[in-house]
Amino acid sequence: MPERPAETAFPIHDLLRRRWSPRAFSTKAIEREKIGSLLEAARWAASSRNEQPWRFVLLERAQSEAFERMVGCLAEGNQSWARKAGLLVLVCAYPKFTPDGNANRHALHDCGFAVGCITLQALALDLWVHQMAGFSGEKARAAFNVPAEFETVSVLALGYYGDPAELPENRRAQETGPRSRKPLVEIAFDEVWGKPASF
Amino acid sequence: MPERPAETAFPIHDLLRRRWSPRAFSTKAIEREKIGSLLEAARWAASSRNEQPWRFVLLERAQSEAFERMVGCLAEGNQSWARKAGLLVLVCAYPKFTPDGNANRHALHDCGFAVGCITLQALALDLWVHQMAGFSGEKARAAFNVPAEFETVSVLALGYYGDPAELPENRRAQETGPRSRKPLVEIAFDEVWGKPASF
Repeated sequence: MPERPAETAFPIHDLLRRRWSPRAFSTKAIEREKIGSLLEAARWAASSRNEQPWRFVLLERAQSEAFERMVGCLAEGNQSWARKAGLLVLVCAYPKFTPDGNANRHALHDCGFAVGCITLQALALDLWVHQMAGFSGEKARAAFNVPAEFETVSVLALGYYGDPAELPENRRAQETGPRSRKPLVEIAFDEVWGKPASF
Repeated sequence: MPERPAETAFPIHDLLRRRWSPRAFSTKAIEREKIGSLLEAARWAASSRNEQPWRFVLLERAQSEAFERMVGCLAEGNQSWARKAGLLVLVCAYPKFTPDGNANRHALHDCGFAVGCITLQALALDLWVHQMAGFSGEKARAAFNVPAEFETVSVLALGYYGDPAELPENRRAQETGPRSRKPLVEIAFDEVWGKPASF
């Protein structure tokens, strides 16, 4: 497993520091109780008005027919590596507030928070997550009977780490190259927009 | 500090288990290097095409004029308790992909992931986060010069834990009462929508 820790000016928790989004997954199955822990992590996430808009369709590699159907919904560039993951998860969102039917502008936002919780719980279990926006929501809706009132959000590839040498050649450099982020002063301001946070 | 751990059928990491959204904040200032750690946690979050759509305007309690301006943007029900927090953070999002200008459907989603990282980093530093959707985006945009091309997303109240006895009476029960979530089988399906995940 390549270690690619975040380079930070201030220390962050080890789970956050070690997290990145790999593509070289092992085909090893994920223990069912670990899947339970991943879902509990999402379940207890924070959400606007405690709406809990997140829903998850689980496709284990061993359930080969449903799993292949999910792979077939992915963008072509994701299929070759994501099909090795032990688990694919179709993330969906309920875009309204249940009590009054009003639009929930934070439905996807709160799914993002929940997926963050899954990702860090995964790391604590030696599992890795790669989120994909590159998939056909229409195909996925048809393939897994997602009701019209829900939105398809993303697909997670999730599993143990594998062998980067097995990645397609054009993906290998991405797996080990330097990671990049905007400087802190471009994303954080003091008191007013545009005044860089100073430390 | 009331302990309100998540009740889970499968174990989850202690940071996830202990997290909840308090309202009884202490007015104690947050060390500047801890704010640095919170921002680094967000900075290294995952985002679609590594767009990093998140931006943060920091309002420290000690910067009383700007801080009060932020309090004034909050929904009335949030003002009384949130004004005690050591730090308020206005979260904003860039809703497009920088390279091609196309809409980024996951901009708020990825802000949610980043705020999840802030929240767990906060807990690791004995700090607590309460996200608020209840604020005026228009007022906040005017008060802090948020450019038209960015969206206002949420406001975080962030700080050390205070004294729940100081909460307004109608908030006290919320601070210590039982926490609730949908059962796992309502949010997670095996292979196809509607087939409850079995463990």
